[in-house]
Amino acid sequence: MKIDGRDSRTLWVAADGGAVEIIDQTRLPHEFAVRRLETAEEAATAIRDMWVRGAPLIGVTAAYGLALAARHDASDAGLATAAQMLAATRPTAVNLRWALERVLQTVTPLPPAERGDAAWRLAGEMAEEDVALCAAIGAHGAVLLEALWRDRRAAGAERLNILTHCNAGWLAAIDWGTALAPVYKAHELGVPLHVWVDETRPRNQGAALTARELNWAGVSHSVIADNAGGHLMQHGEVDAVIVGTDRTTAEGDVCNKIGTYLKALAAHDNGVPFYVALPGPTIDWRVQDGLREIPIEERSAAEVTSIVGRGPAGALVAVQLTPDGSPARNPAFDVTPARLVTALVTERGVCPASRAGLLRLYPERAGA
Amino acid sequence: MKIDGRDSRTLWVAADGGAVEIIDQTRLPHEFAVRRLETAEEAATAIRDMWVRGAPLIGVTAAYGLALAARHDASDAGLATAAQMLAATRPTAVNLRWALERVLQTVTPLPPAERGDAAWRLAGEMAEEDVALCAAIGAHGAVLLEALWRDRRAAGAERLNILTHCNAGWLAAIDWGTALAPVYKAHELGVPLHVWVDETRPRNQGAALTARELNWAGVSHSVIADNAGGHLMQHGEVDAVIVGTDRTTAEGDVCNKIGTYLKALAAHDNGVPFYVALPGPTIDWRVQDGLREIPIEERSAAEVTSIVGRGPAGALVAVQLTPDGSPARNPAFDVTPARLVTALVTERGVCPASRAGLLRLYPERAGA
Repeated sequence: MKIDGRDSRTLWVAADGGAVEIIDQTRLPHEFAVRRLETAEEAATAIRDMWVRGAPLIGVTAAYGLALAARHDASDAGLATAAQMLAATRPTAVNLRWALERVLQTVTPLPPAERGDAAWRLAGEMAEEDVALCAAIGAHGAVLLEALWRDRRAAGAERLNILTHCNAGWLAAIDWGTALAPVYKAHELGVPLHVWVDETRPRNQGAALTARELNWAGVSHSVIADNAGGHLMQHGEVDAVIVGTDRTTAEGDVCNKIGTYLKALAAHDNGVPFYVALPGPTIDWRVQDGLREIPIEERSAAEVTSIVGRGPAGALVAVQLTPDGSPARNPAFDVTPARLVTALVTERGVCPASRAGLLRLYPERAGA
Repeated sequence: MKIDGRDSRTLWVAADGGAVEIIDQTRLPHEFAVRRLETAEEAATAIRDMWVRGAPLIGVTAAYGLALAARHDASDAGLATAAQMLAATRPTAVNLRWALERVLQTVTPLPPAERGDAAWRLAGEMAEEDVALCAAIGAHGAVLLEALWRDRRAAGAERLNILTHCNAGWLAAIDWGTALAPVYKAHELGVPLHVWVDETRPRNQGAALTARELNWAGVSHSVIADNAGGHLMQHGEVDAVIVGTDRTTAEGDVCNKIGTYLKALAAHDNGVPFYVALPGPTIDWRVQDGLREIPIEERSAAEVTSIVGRGPAGALVAVQLTPDGSPARNPAFDVTPARLVTALVTERGVCPASRAGLLRLYPERAGA
């Protein structure tokens, strides 16, 4: 995607080849800061402290982290330790683990001296693959949005209203994004879109990142409180919901940012299509029942009791929102049951949120 | 209710009798500031700028505002102008209008010289009536909570988990509150309660006011993001939801703080009882279909794009959350259809959310 006319990604290899560089997303939307990751530890910090976030981007960052580890200590034990440290940063996202396993499986058969370069090459390939997956999701999703727009336009509408939760745009991936890829592709095709951007408390990825992205891309949008989406749907102001996912089960349950389930309920109650955009690697074929089987990350209470924004003097300031002595709970994800999902939008096409639907697109998994 | 052992209300007559005094709720939870209202204009500002909020408290403040106007200009025209100004402050709450009409109907037949004192007396009576209404709601609701607790305890639970949205505690009324009155009464009766406090963006009445109240009262609670309630319900961590209402239709639809509808959907989907506590004056007998007939207040986008909290130096600071150039929409209320409401808890008892249910408790309205 472009920032002020310049092609940009969320992660790239540093000019000297000795590190990867990332956009520190904790400073957005107010500051654009780049950070250099030279070691596996720094990559782990980047994931844990959410300088990078979003399932696809976490996966690629972890792969580069393991490659950075392999450059220093490519022994089996060294790689295992680094992989374990990287995997422990975020418990819910499945393609963090998928990316690490893929690197390990590829480099472990090689002599230790070759492992560092092989891991580095593979991480780069995974980044390019992610771009291709997201672009394909965008193309398939744009077909859905164009069809919706034809219907709405025929009914006299002036724009197509999309609601999204959290950030599943290019800042959550390497480029394009998942849920926002169809939005960007449809925008390029001339569909007059308006996006309702859920703020997405407690970390405000919607207000901070999705709004920032849509601003850069020139897509019409409004930020709304997470509480407002149901009301907008009741009044016909939402034509479709599109969200991403951190883990999708083999039965089509969707684990995504906390609050997604509430929007799915409202969409279902109002006959609004609810689409989930995902690259194949976020499907966890070993998990059937998302509600019972997926571990939900509990994050710090401080994310609820305080918030960071741009203060009157222009600098970022954390302010406390709750009274002293009031504790908080902070589950980071919830599970939307497949019954509430209209369709899954993948790099291979669109399918019902069910085992049968997924197997139609991923037949090689039939025996899994 | 007590603050640090001292009996407190949200509004009281100043010692010199020349004004009413209120707690400025925009400074809570971090500062406890009292403001003096000497004129109808000041009362209107207090309501418009939400120094006072909550349907019952708005009603009484407006009544005192009209009484203050009557002390200066008790002519028919003067009262009509003041009532119009006060009514325009908040479009959704019905007992704002109800309170103003009641004062006008009572004082208009009197000679102008007597109107000021009569209005002042009536405003005081309305405050006392509100306290009695809320106490009765609390008593009826506590019976429900005790019954729920007996069931949960028999099933091995260690506490009764209640979720509430926004603030419908004593800060929203004169004393006791509506949704929290049953909580306080059940707490006094020894039910081991835990309250999940929805933050309630954009104005954070939950994180700021409900948490502050529960802290003062020593009731166990945790603040959660508005996004988290559905997840907690999916995992059996919510035994009941109780909320207040700004306007209830004759058919039992409930207009309350934006986001209430989403919690009602989640409660319904998970078999969690969803109770709405209300004093009779919030029933709008002229309105049938809440979704089509109740005007929804749209508030300033700034409430979404920025937030006020306690900064590092201890003072209140407003911080911007969104990128420059991203607009916001800010509907303040939504309508929860009666089909999602388990029961209404009123000062006259508990009833189904339906015309038949309401008429059983308010038979005098049968011809309305």
